[in-house]
Amino acid sequence: MGSCLGYALLDGCDAAFSIDASSVTFGRGALSEIGEHARALGARRVALFTDRTLAALPPVDTARRALLAAGLDVAVYDDVRVEPTDASFLDAAAFAREGGFDTYVSVGGGSVIDTCKAALLYATYPADLAAYVNRPLGEGRPVPGPLPPHLACPTTTGTGSECTGIAIFDFRAHHAKTGIASRALRPTLALVDPTAAASLPAGVVAASGFDVLSHALESFTARPFSARARPDSPRARPMSQGRNPWSDLGCREALRLTGRYLVRAARDAADTEARDAMAWAATLAGIAFGNAGVHLPHAMSYALSGLRHDFHMPGYPAPFVPHGVAVILGAPAAFRALAATDPARHLEAATLLGADPADLRASAADPRAIGDLLADHLARMMQDAGLPNGASAVGYGEPDLRDLAAGTLAQARLIDNAPRPIAEDELTALFRSALTCW
Amino acid sequence: MGSCLGYALLDGCDAAFSIDASSVTFGRGALSEIGEHARALGARRVALFTDRTLAALPPVDTARRALLAAGLDVAVYDDVRVEPTDASFLDAAAFAREGGFDTYVSVGGGSVIDTCKAALLYATYPADLAAYVNRPLGEGRPVPGPLPPHLACPTTTGTGSECTGIAIFDFRAHHAKTGIASRALRPTLALVDPTAAASLPAGVVAASGFDVLSHALESFTARPFSARARPDSPRARPMSQGRNPWSDLGCREALRLTGRYLVRAARDAADTEARDAMAWAATLAGIAFGNAGVHLPHAMSYALSGLRHDFHMPGYPAPFVPHGVAVILGAPAAFRALAATDPARHLEAATLLGADPADLRASAADPRAIGDLLADHLARMMQDAGLPNGASAVGYGEPDLRDLAAGTLAQARLIDNAPRPIAEDELTALFRSALTCW
Ligand SMILES: NC(=O)c1ccc[n+]([C@@H]2O[C@H](COP(=O)([O-])OP(=O)(O)OC[C@H]3O[C@@H](n4cnc5c(N)ncnc54)[C@H](O)[C@@H]3O)[C@@H](O)[C@H]2O)c1
Ligand SMILES: NC(=O)c1ccc[n+]([C@@H]2O[C@H](COP(=O)([O-])OP(=O)(O)OC[C@H]3O[C@@H](n4cnc5c(N)ncnc54)[C@H](O)[C@@H]3O)[C@@H](O)[C@H]2O)c1
Repeated sequence: MGSCLGYALLDGCDAAFSIDASSVTFGRGALSEIGEHARALGARRVALFTDRTLAALPPVDTARRALLAAGLDVAVYDDVRVEPTDASFLDAAAFAREGGFDTYVSVGGGSVIDTCKAALLYATYPADLAAYVNRPLGEGRPVPGPLPPHLACPTTTGTGSECTGIAIFDFRAHHAKTGIASRALRPTLALVDPTAAASLPAGVVAASGFDVLSHALESFTARPFSARARPDSPRARPMSQGRNPWSDLGCREALRLTGRYLVRAARDAADTEARDAMAWAATLAGIAFGNAGVHLPHAMSYALSGLRHDFHMPGYPAPFVPHGVAVILGAPAAFRALAATDPARHLEAATLLGADPADLRASAADPRAIGDLLADHLARMMQDAGLPNGASAVGYGEPDLRDLAAGTLAQARLIDNAPRPIAEDELTALFRSALTCW
Repeated sequence: MGSCLGYALLDGCDAAFSIDASSVTFGRGALSEIGEHARALGARRVALFTDRTLAALPPVDTARRALLAAGLDVAVYDDVRVEPTDASFLDAAAFAREGGFDTYVSVGGGSVIDTCKAALLYATYPADLAAYVNRPLGEGRPVPGPLPPHLACPTTTGTGSECTGIAIFDFRAHHAKTGIASRALRPTLALVDPTAAASLPAGVVAASGFDVLSHALESFTARPFSARARPDSPRARPMSQGRNPWSDLGCREALRLTGRYLVRAARDAADTEARDAMAWAATLAGIAFGNAGVHLPHAMSYALSGLRHDFHMPGYPAPFVPHGVAVILGAPAAFRALAATDPARHLEAATLLGADPADLRASAADPRAIGDLLADHLARMMQDAGLPNGASAVGYGEPDLRDLAAGTLAQARLIDNAPRPIAEDELTALFRSALTCW
């Protein structure tokens, strides 16, 4: 069947990929424009979602003032739970339903933006929580129709949630993280003001920075779009369509930026060059992974953050394994194992991430060494940014490995998007090797 | 005021840039999906715009059958004029107004896609032609409201019109090319099927390929977004906001691809790798220039194609200076003069376009030589792809230079987007040097 743009085309597989629309305004001071953007979208009564910490910080104040200055009615909900749960989603949805809002604004990290997505969905089309949640934990029902405008303003340099149609939560009833995924959930407008992240604690810069790195690295190495079965209809082409020439573009730039700036941004709060770059990398990686999807390390992360909640990462308000920590803990082991699926691409990723030139030259000569090179480089970045040394450092040990593997396999959507199938035994071994990273 | 992502921030100037949404599906066979996409957008009665040549070729047949197979009513308009005029826009608008259509499809090059944009605009919000046309030739009135869905399917590897809110035409009443520019005109969905360009004559591959190159090179070197005066309101941020980190990303990839594939695609119709790559480069450059805007060479092109119509480029149905030829004729002279505004960036462009490494090394040592390097490399590509040797080869001479300069200065929007001001005398000299390119 030949190839197109370097992607091999296969019988029975998809031959096209789609680029989904994200509207973004990026720049210092962009947050103060929110009132006019909201008014142009027809807003009158606005729900502003945030969390307790942010409620007392400048970004929320800036957004609230700008909305009021535009003559809008604003009600603040600051009960968002950091790393949301089923209960916290439902509480936010009740606020949304009772408030009679026509427009939604979220000012915060992924926890806030995701909670706002869930709240406006359940307020607009009320249903049991499980209704729209991804299978197998939920029913995976499609969003029934259009949703009200949502202006998303990230204050972490991490999730890219402002550009995705995904809302993640800890489904405590099932002891597992999962989410809601629909193009309809993508915010109407992302306002990315890098100054909003000025007050981020170092621990959150580091953790959410590794979330950016993971989005870019996993989307860059996911199963190709052209190796996924051809959909019955173009409308059935999933958001996680696999890596493709469009996502490759954003991933390459996000990898280059995280390689250069992640550790700097985490180490020095005064390094605005690095923090600006991480804010931009987060947005690019969000656009890319929204069109390609992540894979194995993210699937592993949902098990790692769903099972134990006693690790307390500095900078976070409570003990739990923050998402950005969870996604990178399994990454060295996963990429060590998966690099052989496409050595050249994994070598390119290591290069973009700034691996040592001498190591790169050595690996180019011996493709079997590329997995180790990439894994070792990731571990070094984690160490330099102050991350915990592997799954054992957040409370896991040998007796947990089977549960972790089982929890990972439950993330079928993500496992399917990996470059090759992974069996339960191999997963157990990966978690064993993820117990320590260096 | 510091800098952000490498862009210097200046007092009184803009500090934010926006990314506008384009929905694209790209891939071999994507055209056959159009019926389902149209139905999902609520289509019942579809106007299919194309031109006489294309009406007899496979892409139009594929699209028509797919629309009919989806149970839709389809009326074909194949009277699009290649390089549209005021009269041809009005004729198409009359067809649209009388047909009672709810959805629009365009299958063709920029001429077809642009005509479809104009037709649906004037059918939806009837007005004199001048009403929505850019100032100073028109009144520049904003589009009054939402427009019906438009699915744009390019069959040339050129304009990127499927991703822009621009419709260009030859305003014969004024002897000048101009256009209509509004975010509302951006097609709802772009279906880019590189196989639709299989039957393109070599002359059109070459000409439209230089249109891609020009979009990428001009957007990459335009005035920075952060050197444009801060708008009164974020809604007043223009589509042509100047170069920015987002457009840079698409431009770099489009420059790399045109450098590698343009000449190959023009020389060998069987080189599908090169033609696929040019289709993708056209889309990326369309997304980039739709967010950044082009500058001096495009302004010069409107004079070059508006004044004389006796040159006949092989592959085109009638004598006129095709847009893709017109945009590149002035480019060597323009970049020779403008490279000093940002030598490093122009050197990077020459590198991406595949300039000779020895020449690149020599220029890196002498920044004043970079303009010559880039200009000479462009001229070599033109020669290799079979383009006419300068403005004299399409019928211009010394006596036309003043009129050409005056016609260029009338394109205020584009001149403003250049990296520095250009006076009339300098423009006359540029046209003189553009009379021959090698
Ligand atoms: N929807 C998606 O596409 C997507 C993608 C990745 C992750 N996520 C989800 O996002 C959540 C993680 O989001 P996150 O990493 O952005 O962090 P977060 O929203 O959980 O916030 C982390 C901590 O940082 C604080 N904080 C945020 N901004 C601050 C600022 N400017 N100054 C001071 N403190 C600030 C918060 O109050 C909180 O204590 C997880 O639930 C994860 O699963 C979603
Ligand atoms: N709207 C925008 O953003 C934008 C950008 C750049 C240029 N333009 C405009 O677009 C027009 C030029 O468009 P273009 O370069 O795509 O060419 P075109 O639409 O003018 O077509 C050129 C010729 O190629 C033929 N052709 C097209 N597809 C073919 C195919 N697959 N097989 C055989 N023949 C085919 C056409 O019939 C025509 O004869 C100009 O009017 C220009 O000003 C618009």
